[in-house]
Amino acid sequence: MTAEINTAIFPKGTKLSNDWFSGDAFLHPLLAKDKNNEFAMGSVTFEPGARTHWHTHPKGQVLIITEGAGFYQERGKPAQAIKKGDVVNIPEGVEHWHGAASSSKVVHIAITNYQGEENVVWLNPVTDEEYNHVNKK
Amino acid sequence: MTAEINTAIFPKGTKLSNDWFSGDAFLHPLLAKDKNNEFAMGSVTFEPGARTHWHTHPKGQVLIITEGAGFYQERGKPAQAIKKGDVVNIPEGVEHWHGAASSSKVVHIAITNYQGEENVVWLNPVTDEEYNHVNKK
Repeated sequence: MTAEINTAIFPKGTKLSNDWFSGDAFLHPLLAKDKNNEFAMGSVTFEPGARTHWHTHPKGQVLIITEGAGFYQERGKPAQAIKKGDVVNIPEGVEHWHGAASSSKVVHIAITNYQGEENVVWLNPVTDEEYNHVNKK
Repeated sequence: MTAEINTAIFPKGTKLSNDWFSGDAFLHPLLAKDKNNEFAMGSVTFEPGARTHWHTHPKGQVLIITEGAGFYQERGKPAQAIKKGDVVNIPEGVEHWHGAASSSKVVHIAITNYQGEENVVWLNPVTDEEYNHVNKK
């Protein structure tokens, strides 16, 4: 193996609103929905501790983890650790959140399918209690 | 910046058939078409000199270059250099090829949309003359 400078694939992009994300999360858009691609695609960077609010996707979403480590959790289920190289196929209509671990950033490509003109429904923040519970396991 | 071991995101996978690829190309499948995702997704690694045959996609394809450098060329147009971080939105029905440079591997995620049950139509190999012409520029 050769030691190299491990640069990120994409720029970090612009900070995402704390209306829908807790902590410092960033979006670098990669592709908008068009006549062939019935999804939007972007690279999302979560600094340690950052995460989405709880939300649903009417036609599901695919995450490709490209760097770091974090969590994906569906409402009422144990959180699932996610790390570089993992793919998460998120079902339609299932309440969930994803984000970084408290001790690691995570970067993922998100491919978000559209149902008509809608691809996400935002819900409540993931509370510190919910987030800390997942991280201390 | 910190020097780190720059490991690939995905395993290289299994060698792709020389019926459709020239040289050493490998596929690591990431996702099959399902009820929400109307595309197949995989990570394709092209060793230096490796490339697809000429082909078309009935509903287009998106490439995300995750490592290295290579080329994308549509029939009758100049080749386009592609490198880590680039996204290529390939139109439907356009004859094209993609692959590594002669001096560099390239790795890309391919997201290939389906029209019914079909997502690719394979054509002739990219000749050495065509490939060398692109590489010597």
